[in-house]
Amino acid sequence: MHKRSAHRSLLVVGSVALDDIDGPFGMHRDLLGGSASFVARAAAYFTRSVSVVGVIGDDFPQRYVDELVELGVDVSGIERTAGDTFHWVGRYAPDLATRETLDTRLGVFANFDPKLPESYRDAELVLLGNIDPALQLNVLGQVRAPKLVAADTMNLWIDIKRDELLKMLAKVHTLMINDEEARQLAEEHNLRRAAAKILKYGPTSLVIKRGDAGALLFHGGGVFAAPAMPLTDVVDPTGAGDSFAGGLMGYLAYAGDLSPSTIRTAMIMGSVMGSFAVERFSVDGLRGLTTERIQQRFDEFIELARFERVRL
Amino acid sequence: MHKRSAHRSLLVVGSVALDDIDGPFGMHRDLLGGSASFVARAAAYFTRSVSVVGVIGDDFPQRYVDELVELGVDVSGIERTAGDTFHWVGRYAPDLATRETLDTRLGVFANFDPKLPESYRDAELVLLGNIDPALQLNVLGQVRAPKLVAADTMNLWIDIKRDELLKMLAKVHTLMINDEEARQLAEEHNLRRAAAKILKYGPTSLVIKRGDAGALLFHGGGVFAAPAMPLTDVVDPTGAGDSFAGGLMGYLAYAGDLSPSTIRTAMIMGSVMGSFAVERFSVDGLRGLTTERIQQRFDEFIELARFERVRL
Repeated sequence: MHKRSAHRSLLVVGSVALDDIDGPFGMHRDLLGGSASFVARAAAYFTRSVSVVGVIGDDFPQRYVDELVELGVDVSGIERTAGDTFHWVGRYAPDLATRETLDTRLGVFANFDPKLPESYRDAELVLLGNIDPALQLNVLGQVRAPKLVAADTMNLWIDIKRDELLKMLAKVHTLMINDEEARQLAEEHNLRRAAAKILKYGPTSLVIKRGDAGALLFHGGGVFAAPAMPLTDVVDPTGAGDSFAGGLMGYLAYAGDLSPSTIRTAMIMGSVMGSFAVERFSVDGLRGLTTERIQQRFDEFIELARFERVRL
Repeated sequence: MHKRSAHRSLLVVGSVALDDIDGPFGMHRDLLGGSASFVARAAAYFTRSVSVVGVIGDDFPQRYVDELVELGVDVSGIERTAGDTFHWVGRYAPDLATRETLDTRLGVFANFDPKLPESYRDAELVLLGNIDPALQLNVLGQVRAPKLVAADTMNLWIDIKRDELLKMLAKVHTLMINDEEARQLAEEHNLRRAAAKILKYGPTSLVIKRGDAGALLFHGGGVFAAPAMPLTDVVDPTGAGDSFAGGLMGYLAYAGDLSPSTIRTAMIMGSVMGSFAVERFSVDGLRGLTTERIQQRFDEFIELARFERVRL
């Protein structure tokens, strides 16, 4: 994959975390986690122009930061402050289909007040990870002229910060959420109706992530269904959605255009990166990939979705 | 759609029922239901050579039988006997995502002992609907030289008739079940592993129906994901899977070959018919369709699944 010199720059804002994850494969402690960790690693395969804003505590291993630098990611917006890194403790059901949060220790993330380095303010693509919508708006206000702003959110913010969330939605192009969040946000169970309602809040496109049921893209009256690859080995679903978002945004930065057709391809690249992520713990599934392996799995998605046009 | 003179004949065995359905749209009584009712109607749009084996009681409205005749379906294998028609009473949750069975009155279905009229015994395609696997085997033994045998089953038979079910599976080409049934049958949560295990029981292909998450086809080492169309109006999910099976088998009969490529197309035709079925109560969504409307929705599925092949 040639990383085009004309590629667009991608700014990623999100959490950087340490996770303790229990489940059918036992307890794993202090795994690298957080939305920005997955997004940046997935996107870095597509473009050399990824920058990250986040906060880490003094317990955060420097090697994870160094690793991002080696991938060409600009980490000047990752701030290390006194205190503990955001720590999430969760447990997956034996079938990995559901999980529960056992503990959330915000640590330094509690006072996260993202300040963009000057060099970040010209970013063309922005991914606002799942943080307080007031902070998402704050970050967005610091970017001069973004061409595409995508955002994630979660049930907590839909519950307690709906007004700020709606303000944020009025300013973003793409919202990426899961099906339950879409239903909650729109107060409508039917996904097609929910999508129509959410698109009236501002975004021009809505991506609904459905885990092993794939992802849906609603935009401009059209709908696209990206399938999920049935995988033999699924170890850790943590970060699947963020890896999807990273692959999607990374491909858009790489492709250099935002046409509907390119966005569809980007959805599949997102699905490719999500499929790699769940095959290993933490970000391990995103480590050591090559253009060949990414292309190979993209081709497997082509085969997965392929059927002939016929006329009756 | 020209119904080819060279099309293959399709034999459908299954239940013919009257349903009482409660849910967000109120209580609806004595709706036409049963797997064979949906399968035959969906398949009849693709081939003039559909025949049905089933049993009805003396309370069953003759107009539903006459309607099948008008569609060109051979109903000489539908036996009317003294007693009540199989009656299912169920209630859907407000979001239509789940349902519970409130009552099952087998009536004449309790003594169903399918006898094929002589003219049925040369059927080339056979769909063994969800009945006791011992009966499925009995029916199959009466067909002389079927080219493709597909079967459905359910949790009840996996629980209490596993041995007969495995005997039946050794003789069918295609098993069509939902994801929970696949997991239960294979005693394996991971669908790809479950599919590999089930294919060792005998079938050369496995179709896993996943409702609004679409359907998966596992065959010959390959996998195909048929998307589900996100619909604005979903009224009654009853019979969606059977309409899918009818569209699939009907298209195979119409196409006249059983190549992997044709089976993929047939999966989409099944999805098309399932999508029509859920938009109305009972079989109403399958009534009055035209080749044009079926083609139009097939084209919408093409658009739903379309993305470009790119090289990184």
